[in-house]
Amino acid sequence: MAQVIVLNGGSSAGKSGIARCLQAVFPEPWLAFGVDTLIDAMPARLRLGEEGIGFADDGEVTVGGEFRELEDAWIGGVAAMARAGARVIVDEVFLGGTESRARWEKALHGLDVVWVGVRCDATVATGRELARGDRVTGMAEAQADLVHRDMTYDVEVDTTHTESLDCAKAIAGFLSSKNG
Amino acid sequence: MAQVIVLNGGSSAGKSGIARCLQAVFPEPWLAFGVDTLIDAMPARLRLGEEGIGFADDGEVTVGGEFRELEDAWIGGVAAMARAGARVIVDEVFLGGTESRARWEKALHGLDVVWVGVRCDATVATGRELARGDRVTGMAEAQADLVHRDMTYDVEVDTTHTESLDCAKAIAGFLSSKNG
Amino acid sequence: MAQVIVLNGGSSAGKSGIARCLQAVFPEPWLAFGVDTLIDAMPARLRLGEEGIGFADDGEVTVGGEFRELEDAWIGGVAAMARAGARVIVDEVFLGGTESRARWEKALHGLDVVWVGVRCDATVATGRELARGDRVTGMAEAQADLVHRDMTYDVEVDTTHTESLDCAKAIAGFLSSKNG
Amino acid sequence: MAQVIVLNGGSSAGKSGIARCLQAVFPEPWLAFGVDTLIDAMPARLRLGEEGIGFADDGEVTVGGEFRELEDAWIGGVAAMARAGARVIVDEVFLGGTESRARWEKALHGLDVVWVGVRCDATVATGRELARGDRVTGMAEAQADLVHRDMTYDVEVDTTHTESLDCAKAIAGFLSSKNG
Repeated sequence: MAQVIVLNGGSSAGKSGIARCLQAVFPEPWLAFGVDTLIDAMPARLRLGEEGIGFADDGEVTVGGEFRELEDAWIGGVAAMARAGARVIVDEVFLGGTESRARWEKALHGLDVVWVGVRCDATVATGRELARGDRVTGMAEAQADLVHRDMTYDVEVDTTHTESLDCAKAIAGFLSSKNG
Repeated sequence: MAQVIVLNGGSSAGKSGIARCLQAVFPEPWLAFGVDTLIDAMPARLRLGEEGIGFADDGEVTVGGEFRELEDAWIGGVAAMARAGARVIVDEVFLGGTESRARWEKALHGLDVVWVGVRCDATVATGRELARGDRVTGMAEAQADLVHRDMTYDVEVDTTHTESLDCAKAIAGFLSSKNG
Repeated sequence: MAQVIVLNGGSSAGKSGIARCLQAVFPEPWLAFGVDTLIDAMPARLRLGEEGIGFADDGEVTVGGEFRELEDAWIGGVAAMARAGARVIVDEVFLGGTESRARWEKALHGLDVVWVGVRCDATVATGRELARGDRVTGMAEAQADLVHRDMTYDVEVDTTHTESLDCAKAIAGFLSSKNG
Repeated sequence: MAQVIVLNGGSSAGKSGIARCLQAVFPEPWLAFGVDTLIDAMPARLRLGEEGIGFADDGEVTVGGEFRELEDAWIGGVAAMARAGARVIVDEVFLGGTESRARWEKALHGLDVVWVGVRCDATVATGRELARGDRVTGMAEAQADLVHRDMTYDVEVDTTHTESLDCAKAIAGFLSSKNG
């Protein structure tokens, strides 16, 4: 029985919408955490400064050493929540590719994890970034393919032509077939 | 040359996303106001109380007398902005049907207005309402057809299968053909 | 009978808190608009770009030509709402000093306006800016005195040692004595 | 060397402002989590429904069984973050009094924890609740004394007449004297 669902996808690919739909679709309660949960918990100077996470004008994201240390503790904490019995959905952007994923894999070792790739055509994601209006322009395009490089998944969904709720149902279907 | 664009559609139909894309698509600056702009300006007791706007558990919205009076002044103010030379996008939910629209028509009299219907299949809008997670569930379904009853438009877009940016481009295309 | 209350003060001086308390204190409904209402209505590129409003690292704010034009239309629109019968609270930062105020005075000509200075010690405002965590650091200090230079008011309140609600009651008291 | 700071206080007592100031005051990075972090991670139906957290019209808060289970996992996860080396500020409302605190004490066993009481006069907190405008009215008053009943602390601060930043400095001073 799956205890953790990790959604990996670029900015504006629709991960958090899928996470909320998963929470609505499952009869049991699932906690949903995103990259933003961690960023909001950081000191303001790490959110924007040199030691933390930086958003360049072209949408590229750089991450400093102190940020990485807190992130490791955060990942360990989320894993501990799952070990304590909570079902957890993690909404992530593997900017560092398989290395980013390996950090989660190590922390989640021994837990039943479903890895989900959330794809979205770069042009469509860029349009949605404009429509949201609250993001640095360019992140959607910069991340669309990058985060999926060399990655394999248990399930893949593509929000280009599929609604968040239907993606969530596909993921839930995979979980139930796996347990059946 | 259009001075005002009025977008009418149900909750979660995608109006504000289209408004932000229109702002990005047009070379000239347009102001965009939504129903939420007015609601945020109201006293807290009108936002939730009996004299103001109420959101029932089934998503139905009721509006009290004091709310209506402030809304009339707001509509007149937005019209005055357009008369003063600002290009304005209004994102509205005509819950009262043609009567709601008539209030705007009266205030915008003499201005060059483009009326846009923003449609979205009720089931799809309900899914997006879930995915947003910040709305009272049921509003999308309750409003999807209701707001378009007996309404005619200069342009209609449907977000069921069309992205916000493409809807915005279609509206911009109509404006430019009209002026051409 | 006052129709418009204009609150002028620096960033983090507590203007919007006073505005919300005024809305709670008055038995009649008042609309409250802030600088953020206008900024949120602007295209994203004007909010951060060269032609719009810019927030420098030291908290200084610069405003471009297109922003000014839309702001003039906005000011005229708010005045029209008051002329149409709405009671309106405006929460403003007169960065351009008496010139900024003159633009509002001209638009509000003939209306019964109460001008309120909202002061706050620069050090205290800077601490509150830190505590809010959502503002560019430095704006509170840069604006604390600047916005009150050469300004005269009908009422002045100081949030350094006085709660928002008590400031609101003092302003309401002035209005009622004026009408009495 | 303190690894966890737990701030306990009623709604609108100023806990999250103190948490952000602590993050600014400390040279090392601290993560800050609030009750809202957990609530935002919950399924929408638990946030408002019978099985989750409910906000009654008089500001009383009730919490259901499923909420409690997820909360236990959350508490364990935050403790794990501290064990993994992260410095963590927790901003809490001990509605269940010493029993609520005991759940955290058990999870944080063996860690160096500083317990902080954040007091605020009920009338002042109620005024600030009005000024914020985003909270159910009545929570500040209902919780002001309740959460401190039978509680002892390592440090106590009172935001009634003291700014968040000064409260944060007092807490930081306690930590440094303790380590000195």
